[in-house]
Amino acid sequence: MGLIVQKFGGSSVADAHRVKNVARIVTDTYAKGNDVIVVVSAQGDTTDDLIEKAAEISKKPSAREMDMLLCSGEQISIALLAMAIKELGFPAISLLGWQAGFNTSSSYNKARIKKINTERLKEELSKNNIVVVAGFQGINKYDDLTTLGRGGSDTSAVAIAAAMRADRCQIFTDVEGVFTADPRKVKDALKLKEITYDEMLELATLGAQVLNNRSVEMAKKYNVELEVLSSLTNVPGTIVKEVANMEKMLVRGVTKDTDVARVSILNVPDTPGVAFRIFDKLAAKNVNVDIILQSIGRDGTKDITFTTTCDNCDTVKEIIENSEYEDAKVEINTDVAKISVVGAGMETHPGTAAKMFEALYENDINIQMISTSEIKISVLIDKEYADKAVTAVHRAFFPVK
Amino acid sequence: MGLIVQKFGGSSVADAHRVKNVARIVTDTYAKGNDVIVVVSAQGDTTDDLIEKAAEISKKPSAREMDMLLCSGEQISIALLAMAIKELGFPAISLLGWQAGFNTSSSYNKARIKKINTERLKEELSKNNIVVVAGFQGINKYDDLTTLGRGGSDTSAVAIAAAMRADRCQIFTDVEGVFTADPRKVKDALKLKEITYDEMLELATLGAQVLNNRSVEMAKKYNVELEVLSSLTNVPGTIVKEVANMEKMLVRGVTKDTDVARVSILNVPDTPGVAFRIFDKLAAKNVNVDIILQSIGRDGTKDITFTTTCDNCDTVKEIIENSEYEDAKVEINTDVAKISVVGAGMETHPGTAAKMFEALYENDINIQMISTSEIKISVLIDKEYADKAVTAVHRAFFPVK
Repeated sequence: MGLIVQKFGGSSVADAHRVKNVARIVTDTYAKGNDVIVVVSAQGDTTDDLIEKAAEISKKPSAREMDMLLCSGEQISIALLAMAIKELGFPAISLLGWQAGFNTSSSYNKARIKKINTERLKEELSKNNIVVVAGFQGINKYDDLTTLGRGGSDTSAVAIAAAMRADRCQIFTDVEGVFTADPRKVKDALKLKEITYDEMLELATLGAQVLNNRSVEMAKKYNVELEVLSSLTNVPGTIVKEVANMEKMLVRGVTKDTDVARVSILNVPDTPGVAFRIFDKLAAKNVNVDIILQSIGRDGTKDITFTTTCDNCDTVKEIIENSEYEDAKVEINTDVAKISVVGAGMETHPGTAAKMFEALYENDINIQMISTSEIKISVLIDKEYADKAVTAVHRAFFPVK
Repeated sequence: MGLIVQKFGGSSVADAHRVKNVARIVTDTYAKGNDVIVVVSAQGDTTDDLIEKAAEISKKPSAREMDMLLCSGEQISIALLAMAIKELGFPAISLLGWQAGFNTSSSYNKARIKKINTERLKEELSKNNIVVVAGFQGINKYDDLTTLGRGGSDTSAVAIAAAMRADRCQIFTDVEGVFTADPRKVKDALKLKEITYDEMLELATLGAQVLNNRSVEMAKKYNVELEVLSSLTNVPGTIVKEVANMEKMLVRGVTKDTDVARVSILNVPDTPGVAFRIFDKLAAKNVNVDIILQSIGRDGTKDITFTTTCDNCDTVKEIIENSEYEDAKVEINTDVAKISVVGAGMETHPGTAAKMFEALYENDINIQMISTSEIKISVLIDKEYADKAVTAVHRAFFPVK
């Protein structure tokens, strides 16, 4: 008995059969006495099809018109879902982003939510309607449509849950929850009952593509209790909240990220300020840098190595080659993978790193770089051994009984 | 030099190639120094595809949700056309129905335009933008999306032209204008340079599917000069206006309508008020009746025969069979066609009817029913001879030189 926000992604509403399935989940929740707001994405490949249509017209389509185009995708899915809910005999109404009160910044394609005017949402709930809201979209101060960028529908759902003080925000996906490793790759992977926002953030960043980072950050900020669960099976998922029941579990998960490049800048002068100047230039071009390693200076020069995502490689090369360090040489290696263990418990358990390194050593996997934070340990290894590494490290922390 | 409203139907923007073609027409008009507002329909089969999607979910989908669904169609085409115009180096902006100020009645699927708030349109024109407006759609007092029903985009275009006092409203189709007969059927058919609103209304009603009736009525009411022309060839079309240059042309066109049924109600009492009661019942069920014929009473009974569109046949049968006239018998014949000649000139030329009947007689075509108005003469004949009749009558009025 309360207000539940439920979010369904594009694959969950890909065709009539799946839309009807979602309608059943939603109406089951409503029939139990809850108020329900449903946030949906565009059906299946709709967004990609629309992007393709734009590409046929223009190589660099106007950002405003792109948002106008893409917003039609969720419009279709909310109308169909509202029809399907009514078909089951329940009251429903669909609302576009602007009708649901999503006021955003003016920047097209990646707008930020500024405010949700909840008047219409409350009015429809007071009429006992199940409210179906178009995710991913809003309206700016010019009365023009905007989209929130990648993972925008998750953000829409969490934002509504925060603005409406919902009791829970359920994110339905095609997996049953958050696992200790990718269940498609590691057969012993365990589903977590609970996880903290911070752990979820580390897992999201590290490539466990369950929840969009921005939505987890927002959930943390407004203390929205999230649940990640499957739209295909009727079992409890994983709860994401501020303090999770630790269950004596040191580590929450083992992840793999292969969208990573190791960049080495060789032969830069071994003088103060060099690292600052290089990373300042990189930051100015929005190059996010992860693990950083600096060699001990020798013969007046040193090497700086760091990791970044693959799409930044060209920018990095250009920046360094046009810098004041004429002797500097850039080496880029994309045949690497980052393996991480994440868990809020590890900061009080010094043995975690050692256990991870041991598992890798026993499998003859060489560690190229290491990075640690309070709740994670990441290592860079040869991409070839990525899956083997995940399995080995996972088994070290989650022994098969 | 002025304000031109241009309207393009779904087939004119069916794919990227055609969208680019429309962009060229629009920018040519703009480059000549005109302000341009473009109204577009949904691409090709988009609306039918969306209706199909709804049918998979519900046999009788909610009217509100249907409008929510269908409005996505024009949203896609306006975004693509605005992109294509910008790609040619011209300034453009797309506007949804509600952004363009279309306030409508609340009745979904067949809303009437109540008012166009022209503020945004004027603002965008003052920024020198080519304004691309979604046809067929508006918003009601609940802030919900509505659609205008069949031919709605024509109506949108004429309504904008009226509200903005445009110098001309051009309706682009896949034919070059209004012809004296269907040019696909009658090879001698001539393109009219000009035609009056009233003549156009008769032609539209009679099956020359060039312009939607509602839009012609609106154009007449607000004195909007229309031009019907082709988006595929660059030649002048047909101008529709209050007083057309008669060019000594008695008849404007010959049309054929095969969506017609002849209904005979036999054996009703030959007493006063019978016709009134029958047609009153039909009107209450929205059955539009066209030509009416009543037999001379005999033996205390008479027969009433009339024409209507085919989709009304079941309703008519039900009404009569459940009426107080227990002996009445309903006979329906859908193997008929209505052939009409239309022209404002004929009311002062009594020979028109005779000329039409002579042409039919010479071709051995029997006339079942006749109806006349100030600017048209219609006859009902066997459907089998419809095309032959149109050709014969057309040749009588437009002799091949």
